[in-house]
Amino acid sequence: MAINKQTIILKNKPRIIGHFSMVGPMEGKGPLKDYFDYIVKDDLMKQASYEKSERTMLEHIIFGAIDKAGYKIDDIEAMLGGDLLNQIVTSSFTARKFKITFIGLYSACATMAESLALGAILVDNKVFKNVVAGTCSHFSSAERQYRFPLELGNQRPPTSQWTVTGGGATVLSETGSNIAITAVTFGKVVDFGIKDVNNMGGAMAPAACDTILAHLKNTKTNVDDYDLIATGDLGKLGSEILVDLLERENIILGQNYSDCGCLIFDKTERVFMGGSGSGCSASVLNSYILKKLEAGNFKKVMLVATGALMSTTTSQQGETIPGIAHAITIERL
Amino acid sequence: MAINKQTIILKNKPRIIGHFSMVGPMEGKGPLKDYFDYIVKDDLMKQASYEKSERTMLEHIIFGAIDKAGYKIDDIEAMLGGDLLNQIVTSSFTARKFKITFIGLYSACATMAESLALGAILVDNKVFKNVVAGTCSHFSSAERQYRFPLELGNQRPPTSQWTVTGGGATVLSETGSNIAITAVTFGKVVDFGIKDVNNMGGAMAPAACDTILAHLKNTKTNVDDYDLIATGDLGKLGSEILVDLLERENIILGQNYSDCGCLIFDKTERVFMGGSGSGCSASVLNSYILKKLEAGNFKKVMLVATGALMSTTTSQQGETIPGIAHAITIERL
Repeated sequence: MAINKQTIILKNKPRIIGHFSMVGPMEGKGPLKDYFDYIVKDDLMKQASYEKSERTMLEHIIFGAIDKAGYKIDDIEAMLGGDLLNQIVTSSFTARKFKITFIGLYSACATMAESLALGAILVDNKVFKNVVAGTCSHFSSAERQYRFPLELGNQRPPTSQWTVTGGGATVLSETGSNIAITAVTFGKVVDFGIKDVNNMGGAMAPAACDTILAHLKNTKTNVDDYDLIATGDLGKLGSEILVDLLERENIILGQNYSDCGCLIFDKTERVFMGGSGSGCSASVLNSYILKKLEAGNFKKVMLVATGALMSTTTSQQGETIPGIAHAITIERL
Repeated sequence: MAINKQTIILKNKPRIIGHFSMVGPMEGKGPLKDYFDYIVKDDLMKQASYEKSERTMLEHIIFGAIDKAGYKIDDIEAMLGGDLLNQIVTSSFTARKFKITFIGLYSACATMAESLALGAILVDNKVFKNVVAGTCSHFSSAERQYRFPLELGNQRPPTSQWTVTGGGATVLSETGSNIAITAVTFGKVVDFGIKDVNNMGGAMAPAACDTILAHLKNTKTNVDDYDLIATGDLGKLGSEILVDLLERENIILGQNYSDCGCLIFDKTERVFMGGSGSGCSASVLNSYILKKLEAGNFKKVMLVATGALMSTTTSQQGETIPGIAHAITIERL
């Protein structure tokens, strides 16, 4: 009897045939500005609320990815996704608009990797011919749901991260490109005992460590096999903790390690530890990472999206913050 | 190119090898009282909050289902599930306790069927040897998250339903019993334009209609092929709307149609239109329905769990309530 399987090797190597990223004005001024498909000028997008703006953004993203794959919405067999808003309303309202078979998921900021992992398995086993996986987050809707009303002008502690306004989507299919998902590892829920909701990176680092160890072991690869190992949104502090944790296991992350939350903003932007949110790894994957793979700059990438699985209620009730990380290997064949 | 695939026929017929249901005291006095595996005397379960009580309940349920399958937690390769609480904390905290590979899902009250559908596909394609799928809800935690503080003693309108305190879990494996999941249909998000959050049954009925039509057509079956067609939690009013909607499509639901929300409570309990919540179809499936299948009273059952995909924020912002329904066929071989 197998003990708690985590890794699945995808024998048919499902291909990435379309992807789209879209971000807000602040992300659009950052180091990855030339890689994003669309940068919005106004993060409210002429909507009556930030929640509606987030939803409008995801609609554009899903449409954009499908369009770039050369398909129409009706050609896509199913949509997989979730988001940070309560009851994943951004995703389900988007699925309503497109009248598409919908599989709702939730892994907090690890949702992009969870959606891609499941989507890749479904395409690999010919359950679906093609699927679209995507997610989005918005600084202003996340801030008022998880933390404080924006109007309060609350001071941010130095360990805090900045929820990315933006997101990305990926279309997976049996054939049609030379960029493939070749292995996925689903995470376990790992808890380091951190209670500070302004230190998400610290809370999620042990989950990232756990999943990276499992992914390396089960795919029989080592750190040097990857041109890039990118965690989702550990931020600066969380990344340093991850490097330390892996060092104890004799895994040395080198120059090929980075974090999407650190890649998306630069030091001139007052985001403290870096970006976070389900849209962070989603927008970085579907811009910088996939474009570098397509251009041949990267040959093999491990994306390890990380999620903090608390709610405001669990934090108010004194619970610690559990983390999860899901990993996918993306290769240029 | 296929247009929006919804139904998957499971060629290897993954088996249900263990199941467990647990409910609160009120559900334990209802018509299904002899079918539940465990009825708690105190719905707070000696915990400090209803959220902790809900979590304790799901821990017992997941453990119970795995134990009844004759396995230990470590023998189970993955857990699939979600729940009604914001950020599905009941499920992710349960996964934390069991240190198990976790795939977090969300389809509101349709989560049991979504978890089973995905779990069955993963086992059918030998991605996992076995999985546990489960969910739980709690009247008191749902009431204060979605509606009003319990202390307010708010009057309930006549179209309202009562969130079930309880839940259920199912262990799926490649072999090991004669009860199998043979087909699944994932739903699309359907919106009838209803805004009244006290009329969830009405909001979800069109989604149930849409999914039942797809499931019948794609599995080439008709209503009479099933000993039971059970919707998740449409309640009395929602069920009547569903019967009407299907009649317009020349599908006549007869004596073999029922709704888990109507089955779980009787008229002496002041629950108005019946039960609801992700634990509603979860507890009824994992008690009454599966026990009747095992006893040979049913040979073929269609479970159509239904979910309302709004959040308190979308309702406050004037949005209508989108619904979704996922269907599974369970057969005694």
